[in-house]
Amino acid sequence: MQRYFIDKSKITNELILPTDIYHHAIRVMRMHVGSYFELVLETQKIALMRITQVKKDEAKAELIKWVEANVELPASVTIACALSKGEKAEWIVQKGTELGAKEFIFFAGEFSVTKWDSKKVTKKVDRLAKVALNAAQQSHRTKIPNVHYCSSLDAIELPRFDYRLVAYEESAKEGEKSNLFKLTTSLKKQVEASLSSEILAVFGPEGGISAREVAYMNENAFVFAGLGPRIMRAETAPLYLLSALSFALELG
Amino acid sequence: MQRYFIDKSKITNELILPTDIYHHAIRVMRMHVGSYFELVLETQKIALMRITQVKKDEAKAELIKWVEANVELPASVTIACALSKGEKAEWIVQKGTELGAKEFIFFAGEFSVTKWDSKKVTKKVDRLAKVALNAAQQSHRTKIPNVHYCSSLDAIELPRFDYRLVAYEESAKEGEKSNLFKLTTSLKKQVEASLSSEILAVFGPEGGISAREVAYMNENAFVFAGLGPRIMRAETAPLYLLSALSFALELG
Repeated sequence: MQRYFIDKSKITNELILPTDIYHHAIRVMRMHVGSYFELVLETQKIALMRITQVKKDEAKAELIKWVEANVELPASVTIACALSKGEKAEWIVQKGTELGAKEFIFFAGEFSVTKWDSKKVTKKVDRLAKVALNAAQQSHRTKIPNVHYCSSLDAIELPRFDYRLVAYEESAKEGEKSNLFKLTTSLKKQVEASLSSEILAVFGPEGGISAREVAYMNENAFVFAGLGPRIMRAETAPLYLLSALSFALELG
Repeated sequence: MQRYFIDKSKITNELILPTDIYHHAIRVMRMHVGSYFELVLETQKIALMRITQVKKDEAKAELIKWVEANVELPASVTIACALSKGEKAEWIVQKGTELGAKEFIFFAGEFSVTKWDSKKVTKKVDRLAKVALNAAQQSHRTKIPNVHYCSSLDAIELPRFDYRLVAYEESAKEGEKSNLFKLTTSLKKQVEASLSSEILAVFGPEGGISAREVAYMNENAFVFAGLGPRIMRAETAPLYLLSALSFALELG
């Protein structure tokens, strides 16, 4: 079923479709009177709607019922990636959204070969926010992940994060393989106790993490975790982490 | 360190580089006398090599030592994906190789919107095999995953697989969340007992799996597993599975 996010916390029983939804539902999806779709409100409530009227530039829909669904990862995971080459940011956001990330931060790592020209940052972040919105609709999320940019690793605000993790290739090479497992065990307890947790997971660029960045994370209580014995591309590691967290917290 | 696969099961202490390795190491990577690289033999043994001589069209390298490394997923996972749109196959192979898949099978699902013209199958499979080779080198695998094509789901040979799993969206919708967990628990026991297991994991196309395909898998002892509550794109689900298996079998 087609799903749309609407920037309202309430809806009336009969609703005139906002322009963007009107355009996609009627013009792109060719919906007609009697077609069903879902609306996700800012409150994360999901409304099953049916189209009742279609005019040239306007369409109306009625509320059929509220739908119960809990599809959000039980822990809030922020994926912080150093800038990488090409379109990696776009699909880290697309796949990461499908896999349940709550937020994405892109930062200029000391070894990032790519830099975001300050004039272009807003445009890039807006573009990534659009990718997140589309992926959230497609994967039937009830939250749209936020996307931010930080000029450096230490520009990321740390206090709000209960857990701080960095995927560190050197740890993996040294055979570190228990830290992620420990983290998920502790998260599982939190979830079972219905406590919410904010997790920050940092991923370096192709060039790796600088000694200064390593020192900074050491000083700030980051857990250095290996993600298995194989070397993953910068854009693959965040998907591994989110999949592992989903497996550990949502299955079983 | 740059790593190359070589189609030999033995090497001499001094080796003339094969043309493809010569080209990449000397022309592309600009290696010179004294440069180090690794060679992975067909036996999966890893040799640390040093270049000893560079001529116009030939270079020699000497064996410095054998390197110990076990980076292969302890279970053999075959990812069987129905044909999907665009370049999804290429990056299922690239990312799946980074995540430890042993083999990839692409098959024409009943609901696949894409078909592979029989004249083009060989070319497509060769292309994907090249992607697998490059990803295996990049992720420091010691095995290059095989890539195959099957004209339909029931053309896949089943007897060699100890475990057969299908990622089934309907199962996920119905809240099925224990089957993958059970599978990994059983696999973990096999691994601890140093027993090898062959796993087949089937993923449908965007259009989903047909009733006939579902019936066929039911008849052939497939486990229908949900991969969490979010809807994943056809190309994301295999990465979720491989990441979850790595987490369950390689970490902790």
